[in-house]
Amino acid sequence: MANIIKKYTPGFNIHDIQKKYNLKKVIKLASNENPFISKNVLSFINNSKHNLNLYPDSNPHNLHSEIAKSIGYRMTDKNIILGNGSNEILELIVRSNIDNKSEVIIPKHSFLVYEIISKLQNAKIIISKPENDKNNKNYLGVNLTAIYEKISKNTKLIFIANPANPTGTYISIKHIDDFLKSIPKKILVIIDEAYFEYLDSNIDKSAISLIKKYKNIYVTRSFSKIYGLASLRVGYGVSNPENINKLKLYKQPFSTNYFAQKAASIALKDSSFIKESKKNNHDALQQFKKIFDELKITYLGTYCNFITFRVGNNSSSLFNYLLTKGVIVRPLTNYKLPEYLRVSLGSPSDNKLFIKHLKGFYSENTK
Amino acid sequence: MANIIKKYTPGFNIHDIQKKYNLKKVIKLASNENPFISKNVLSFINNSKHNLNLYPDSNPHNLHSEIAKSIGYRMTDKNIILGNGSNEILELIVRSNIDNKSEVIIPKHSFLVYEIISKLQNAKIIISKPENDKNNKNYLGVNLTAIYEKISKNTKLIFIANPANPTGTYISIKHIDDFLKSIPKKILVIIDEAYFEYLDSNIDKSAISLIKKYKNIYVTRSFSKIYGLASLRVGYGVSNPENINKLKLYKQPFSTNYFAQKAASIALKDSSFIKESKKNNHDALQQFKKIFDELKITYLGTYCNFITFRVGNNSSSLFNYLLTKGVIVRPLTNYKLPEYLRVSLGSPSDNKLFIKHLKGFYSENTK
Repeated sequence: MANIIKKYTPGFNIHDIQKKYNLKKVIKLASNENPFISKNVLSFINNSKHNLNLYPDSNPHNLHSEIAKSIGYRMTDKNIILGNGSNEILELIVRSNIDNKSEVIIPKHSFLVYEIISKLQNAKIIISKPENDKNNKNYLGVNLTAIYEKISKNTKLIFIANPANPTGTYISIKHIDDFLKSIPKKILVIIDEAYFEYLDSNIDKSAISLIKKYKNIYVTRSFSKIYGLASLRVGYGVSNPENINKLKLYKQPFSTNYFAQKAASIALKDSSFIKESKKNNHDALQQFKKIFDELKITYLGTYCNFITFRVGNNSSSLFNYLLTKGVIVRPLTNYKLPEYLRVSLGSPSDNKLFIKHLKGFYSENTK
Repeated sequence: MANIIKKYTPGFNIHDIQKKYNLKKVIKLASNENPFISKNVLSFINNSKHNLNLYPDSNPHNLHSEIAKSIGYRMTDKNIILGNGSNEILELIVRSNIDNKSEVIIPKHSFLVYEIISKLQNAKIIISKPENDKNNKNYLGVNLTAIYEKISKNTKLIFIANPANPTGTYISIKHIDDFLKSIPKKILVIIDEAYFEYLDSNIDKSAISLIKKYKNIYVTRSFSKIYGLASLRVGYGVSNPENINKLKLYKQPFSTNYFAQKAASIALKDSSFIKESKKNNHDALQQFKKIFDELKITYLGTYCNFITFRVGNNSSSLFNYLLTKGVIVRPLTNYKLPEYLRVSLGSPSDNKLFIKHLKGFYSENTK
């Protein structure tokens, strides 16, 4: 069985590209990291005494409570499970619920980890087709009608990323609610909200608001995106306490490390950092959209901290051109989007470099 | 199924005991942590710039090579898999090889995680009986003959901790070699060497020396013990490259965090820290043995950084007495050793406190 499973291919590594192309400066806009780091977290790390020799807290109640409070919707610590990245939570849900008799529905162009972890449980993977109306803001994103049509008596789990990576699209909570209402309650639904914090919290509600209404849903969140802590591996899952307790049986006692726990707690409270990160992301988005429009490059949804843009047959030549200039973006062939590339919204200086070389490529190739 | 699985119970937490008994100072000798921390690691953490916002290296070749070099036996980076603690490696081996048709042999009184992760794969757990000769240094430890007798046509995996926790016993590599020679080659054997570094490397060989001879063995090691990095979660597995590649299919791309990778690399090279840690452990061991002998308390093997000692019917009253004095040790009822307690070998001052209160208990109870 193991031979049918592809390993996840992460974004290229800065150091490898420096060596390969003999470059001094290489920037990475390939893994949708926040370009900034909370000063409060850095100060804690640099200026505190750390008992590195001691095991981390295996059940950090206080952090669970802080997270519950921060997300609202009357959640408590009992609704929360902390993970070694939200990937661990996805894996725990799959391991504790899926076997070789299960069908798992995954929308086409989804985060690759969904398929990898489901195949490891020998599940049958059912790919649902994306939205196909080019005038729709969800073009190539999650299509709930198409998912509904794929439901069979063996369907056990559905993955929905909202907002979605790499398509950047977003479905309103009203549509998710209607969808959940329509499906059999024995089917579990994971709503992956790794990029949720980039939305406008005054307009967009989280699927966590539906947890008291539906026992069959799990929402996952990450500290690797807007919170700027990808290095430390920390994310969480939210569901009803019964589901959470079941996941905890599958969890290793010390899967989240000391710095992950401490930094998550600090970052949660650093509201000015989150605000600045959103502001930078918003500004970068406007700048990128303007350039893409100028260059007549079309792009997909823009609800996250990246843009996936269509370059047709140029995708591998543009990708390689950017590499030689020290700019790493993400090819999307693995995501069945071979004509697209994905670029993360970085710091102003990194964005400037990307834009310069993007323009350079098009000016060289249209001479 | 999930209801038959017990969760792992970690050692009590210092903060909880401080609150419960209103104590200023509480020491923990319950989780076999090194009482010391490498100054080189601490200095890196306090004095370096950390790109916390970036994902860690998903395949840290250099660290794999450094580990391979440090363990010798002609291992290379291809023999190594890094894990979120060695627990993750144990789990990957079980998940990728064990199902509901498998029998897993676990020696009585073994580390509880072996049984938990095997049950999560619905395996049938077979407990083999321990050594039962009181004059044997391996008393209550791993009994290879008893394991051999439990082998059936369904046996798929055998766990052997060497040295073993919580019995502290150690089997020579010659006996392990003979055992491996005698069993069918389709049976996988995990040799858990979490405490290996406390042995005398001039006398005691690692089971890694057998990896080129037997394709069916995996050796696991930890940075949570002598390397003093329990907080960061890092360990590794060693096997032939084919086995390692299979495990990597099951591994999440970013399961080991940035600090785990950096600190492991630094700690590996901090030979004076390892030397001092061993010296402290050796001195503490002599001191503890002397006290136990004085108090006529018998104890099990002493190859690790803890001693498991027999207090008979006194075990829960002594455990609670020590708690009220601010000393946390480990009860072993979960390990089917209800008449024993386990104490970690701590710093000189912590050991002094433990000894003071141990003596206090016996003087109060023999008045």
